[in-house]
Amino acid sequence: MSKLTDVPKRILIGRALRSDRLGETLLPKRIALPVFASDPLSSVAYAPGEVLLVLSIAGVSAYHFSPWIAVAVVVLMFTVVASYRQNVHAYPSGGGDYEVATTNLGPRAGLTVASALLVDYVLTVAVSIASGIENLGSAIPFVIEHKVICAVAVVVLLTLMNLRGVKESGKLFAIPTYVFVGGVFIMIVWGAFRGLVLGDTMRAPTAGFHIRAEHQGLAGFALVFLLLRAFSSGCAALTGVEAISNGVPAFRKPKSRNAATTLAMMGLLAVTMFCGIIALAMTTKVRMAENPAVDLIRGGSPVGSSFVQDPVISQVAEAVFGDGSFLFVVLAAATALVLFLAANTAYNGFPLLGSILAQDRYLPRQLHTRGDRLAFSNGIVLLAGAAALLLIVYGADSTRLIQLYIVGVFVSFTLSQTGMVRHWNRHLRTEKDQAKRRHMIRSRAINTFGAFFTGLVLVVVLATKFSHGAWVALLGMCIFYATMTAIRKHYDRVADEIAAPEEPVPTDDLVRPSRVHSVVLISKIHRPALRALAYAKLLRADSLEALSVNVDAAETKALRAEWERRGIDVPLKILDSPYREVTRPVIDYVKSLRKESPRDAVSVIIPEYVVGHWYEHLLHNQSALRLKGRLLFTPGVMVTSVPYQLQSSEAAKVRARRRLEWNAPGAVRRGPKEHRDHHHRESGTKR
Amino acid sequence: MSKLTDVPKRILIGRALRSDRLGETLLPKRIALPVFASDPLSSVAYAPGEVLLVLSIAGVSAYHFSPWIAVAVVVLMFTVVASYRQNVHAYPSGGGDYEVATTNLGPRAGLTVASALLVDYVLTVAVSIASGIENLGSAIPFVIEHKVICAVAVVVLLTLMNLRGVKESGKLFAIPTYVFVGGVFIMIVWGAFRGLVLGDTMRAPTAGFHIRAEHQGLAGFALVFLLLRAFSSGCAALTGVEAISNGVPAFRKPKSRNAATTLAMMGLLAVTMFCGIIALAMTTKVRMAENPAVDLIRGGSPVGSSFVQDPVISQVAEAVFGDGSFLFVVLAAATALVLFLAANTAYNGFPLLGSILAQDRYLPRQLHTRGDRLAFSNGIVLLAGAAALLLIVYGADSTRLIQLYIVGVFVSFTLSQTGMVRHWNRHLRTEKDQAKRRHMIRSRAINTFGAFFTGLVLVVVLATKFSHGAWVALLGMCIFYATMTAIRKHYDRVADEIAAPEEPVPTDDLVRPSRVHSVVLISKIHRPALRALAYAKLLRADSLEALSVNVDAAETKALRAEWERRGIDVPLKILDSPYREVTRPVIDYVKSLRKESPRDAVSVIIPEYVVGHWYEHLLHNQSALRLKGRLLFTPGVMVTSVPYQLQSSEAAKVRARRRLEWNAPGAVRRGPKEHRDHHHRESGTKR
Repeated sequence: MSKLTDVPKRILIGRALRSDRLGETLLPKRIALPVFASDPLSSVAYAPGEVLLVLSIAGVSAYHFSPWIAVAVVVLMFTVVASYRQNVHAYPSGGGDYEVATTNLGPRAGLTVASALLVDYVLTVAVSIASGIENLGSAIPFVIEHKVICAVAVVVLLTLMNLRGVKESGKLFAIPTYVFVGGVFIMIVWGAFRGLVLGDTMRAPTAGFHIRAEHQGLAGFALVFLLLRAFSSGCAALTGVEAISNGVPAFRKPKSRNAATTLAMMGLLAVTMFCGIIALAMTTKVRMAENPAVDLIRGGSPVGSSFVQDPVISQVAEAVFGDGSFLFVVLAAATALVLFLAANTAYNGFPLLGSILAQDRYLPRQLHTRGDRLAFSNGIVLLAGAAALLLIVYGADSTRLIQLYIVGVFVSFTLSQTGMVRHWNRHLRTEKDQAKRRHMIRSRAINTFGAFFTGLVLVVVLATKFSHGAWVALLGMCIFYATMTAIRKHYDRVADEIAAPEEPVPTDDLVRPSRVHSVVLISKIHRPALRALAYAKLLRADSLEALSVNVDAAETKALRAEWERRGIDVPLKILDSPYREVTRPVIDYVKSLRKESPRDAVSVIIPEYVVGHWYEHLLHNQSALRLKGRLLFTPGVMVTSVPYQLQSSEAAKVRARRRLEWNAPGAVRRGPKEHRDHHHRESGTKR
Repeated sequence: MSKLTDVPKRILIGRALRSDRLGETLLPKRIALPVFASDPLSSVAYAPGEVLLVLSIAGVSAYHFSPWIAVAVVVLMFTVVASYRQNVHAYPSGGGDYEVATTNLGPRAGLTVASALLVDYVLTVAVSIASGIENLGSAIPFVIEHKVICAVAVVVLLTLMNLRGVKESGKLFAIPTYVFVGGVFIMIVWGAFRGLVLGDTMRAPTAGFHIRAEHQGLAGFALVFLLLRAFSSGCAALTGVEAISNGVPAFRKPKSRNAATTLAMMGLLAVTMFCGIIALAMTTKVRMAENPAVDLIRGGSPVGSSFVQDPVISQVAEAVFGDGSFLFVVLAAATALVLFLAANTAYNGFPLLGSILAQDRYLPRQLHTRGDRLAFSNGIVLLAGAAALLLIVYGADSTRLIQLYIVGVFVSFTLSQTGMVRHWNRHLRTEKDQAKRRHMIRSRAINTFGAFFTGLVLVVVLATKFSHGAWVALLGMCIFYATMTAIRKHYDRVADEIAAPEEPVPTDDLVRPSRVHSVVLISKIHRPALRALAYAKLLRADSLEALSVNVDAAETKALRAEWERRGIDVPLKILDSPYREVTRPVIDYVKSLRKESPRDAVSVIIPEYVVGHWYEHLLHNQSALRLKGRLLFTPGVMVTSVPYQLQSSEAAKVRARRRLEWNAPGAVRRGPKEHRDHHHRESGTKR
């Protein structure tokens, strides 16, 4: 059975790794790059188009600003990459921005970063899938005609994959990412060759269109504002850059150096692709508008609402390779695939961050434990539900979704870089070695510039996008922040309440009870009851009795008769129950025992059947379960289940074992445990 | 708080009875009549109309058959009432048709009766509410314009009332039922007075209409078939007659005689009202059609789909009292209310029958215990869901729903009466007293005629209504039958598996373990852990150790250090967990203990927090719960929870106490426990 269902999985992701071999899988750079960089690299599929879209508001003439905006994005990218190279060296434990902000700026800043990142994971799923669908749609019209349904279907597919515990695999990421990167580079080189050497005139499908400027002849402050908005949209290219700093423990040694190198490679690839696509879009005269239906003019009249505006990367590919050509289709498919992988990245990053937050008691503790399927499942379903909701509300329109994006990223960039500045200041206070000091001062300069620049971008993004949708992202951040604060407060309150007193003073609840009175609940004489009696005797309580509730007079009489006939050497006590209840008489009896001798503990022993199926469960143990629930509220009581395994319980055992072998999403990028613990301690000493 | 929410309840049903006073509430006849007879009495609100509807298929001329059909219904009613008076005397325990059929015809017949009754309870809710809405709609047009929504709203209201545990109260039933009966009698008497003495011509609102006969000049077999169909529809007046035979224990002494008298009164009232309404409908020239939109002709053209065909009782009231008159409105309201009370009857009868079936292990055992709120809730929700589904599917149209009705009732009538014949045969074989023998022979004759007549009606109902919807009811019966058989089979299999062997031979699983090894799970040193350790020591197991799982190296180190510092005199064992799991290492360790010494039992002691809110529950104990679940599958283990009550647990305690005070629906008609047990034993000896 399990062999059969494994086949498609094997085909998809190669031979499955056993979870106990997880410790051995460390990522070489050539695999780490696609695993961590699918998100930032894939964003070149939509970021250049967003720049052109915004500029088009001032008419085609504004397109000539696009190279300058590209330059600004490149500078920003280099700044951010340079800054994060410092992070990677200073914090090799993989806590990322959250750890940096918490350590250096305090828990509130840390929690703000965490909230921002959680929102961004949701948006990564929504934006990447929307854009992937649009790219796929440029090759397959059916997809674009049923955009929302297709997008939600991809969400469902990714969710099921991750719920099933399909493990992230290096190869799964490597092939499409490299095909995508290779395809874009071939496109850029071939386009340059055709244009500069062959002197071909390449024309995008929209090259002949005109744009109706919404604001003709924009100048002064309005123009600056528009350029800043175009720049903020271009900043979408930077999302996901921080992923590597979370994943240092998954790298091969020397971990920090390898991570820093991968980061640099990623930055270089991203800016080259970004600039290349912008340049080709200019050359092939791509025309894009925010509202293509009314603002794109073809032959004197607007194109109308039936017109589908293809993404810039696909228009350029059509111009360079030719519509429907093999390379065009391959690139469209690889683009869509790499975007879906970027979405999958969030499915892995969300529980990873959740596990770190759970460790700091901002989220339910069980998220911390690797492989707690139920807890991870809840997180994945939350992520998928929020992303699907956004996709439906925004009609799976990547342009509208991007308005919400980026806020979170730049909140965490800014706080993280500010934290790094503090980090270096602190170290400089104690460091005497001149060489090291010089190095630190250099790092501090980089991080200061990074903090300043990303902070500036954050202000720009907020100013230009707040009313366009960024408020939704901020609202989401506030909700996460408030929830996590409340959870932490609860845990702190409980921790205070249960803290063991330092002196073993005889406070009320720590009075060691002097004796224990055992009570075995009996409804009938059957194997489970006999077993419970046998076990109860083994425990040698100070006193032992069997207890039954008289629900049916005839049955009780039969029970008493059989008790005597079998000569069971435990006294049988029958409680009367005028209303055929079981719970109340037992609770009352236990309370009366406690009242008689308040210093004694009562041990209630309950025989239980163990069955294999949920529907069988409905047929058994219900009153035992309820009784147990109620007994837990009674002080001075311990409740013992003596299970009796029915034959059908074998089925459940098998299911439980299978659950244990489930792979938690994010395992690969989290790295093996020993390494994390080691580094965590290291950074712990630095605090 | 609870005082406040009680106020509307108090207003509605008078001072609440404490559940421990339940034993004192026995019903006098004047209260028992409305409690048990609201269902059969209320059916005169729709049964006469259904007769006219069917006859109209052959045109107005067929209306002159209606007195003959009324006579047939009256004869049937007297037969059934006379038969059930025998049941009530012979089976005073309240098992009703199910018990009679099971005892005399075997478990399969009993289960068939039970399935039929369960289906009929669903239909009672659907038909009564649909008809109540139609009657209410004759006074308030808004209601009839939003028929389905209003009907579903009434289902929801009744469901909430019964889920909340609002107890059935005699007064609640008495007032509207007597108002209804009184109103109908005033109408009949006043109508007769106006017609015969004053010589008024009373005209129903539809008196001037013509009916387009779907089959003009029907004769021979076709006419007989139509008359039989009209008769089956009229039989709807008989539903619920059996209710009294289920409720004998709730009567004051002499129970059987009082129940028999009440049954006779109910029959007399029902036939008088039925015949009176038919007679008035003839006099006032009420015209009704199955498809009024096309078959009712007003001034030469069909009335169209906007026409609302009012129920016969409301048309007659309009003719007798005048449209919008005070008595007309009172009667419409009382009719609707009594129909809703009839629906509520099913909410009480369903769990009552469920509890009897659970006693015989055809339904989950917990249904048997009075006051198991969860179990009853599931039954109520099932009943309400099925009824709401029927109301929606059939557009809350009582005429269409009645096609499904009656099948179940006559299945149980027929089987019950057949069972009674066998009952008398058996008793006649041993009875020597001539006076008693004569009495029995007379009873047997009555039941034989009853069985024959109801059996005949069952055949007629099946033949005339199968394709009109009765097949749905039969399908429902099959589903109930199959489910209950499967549940019984499961219980029997488990009972076999766990039966205690007669000889205490040392079979494998009954080997008394020789020693017990206690293991206390520790994650941190806090009050719950210290309490668990203290309790574990009390139990004096043969060996005791504390067990912790190394999930985080630093935490484990701290735990070990504090353990030593505090000088805790229990050895602390640390299990390694390479994958940060808790469950697997503990399970493996317990298994290894069992393997080392297979004859020893292992006692696992788990400290647990008790919190007050479900959302707090999500934050705690998850790994403990999962571990407990898994440990139950491990043989030779007992699992002990040592609860530590946090302050917030007080809230849950209060909630739990409130749950215990909940009233199970059907409590009043079930009668107090002592009486039931007593009678059950009585009838038990007869078997």
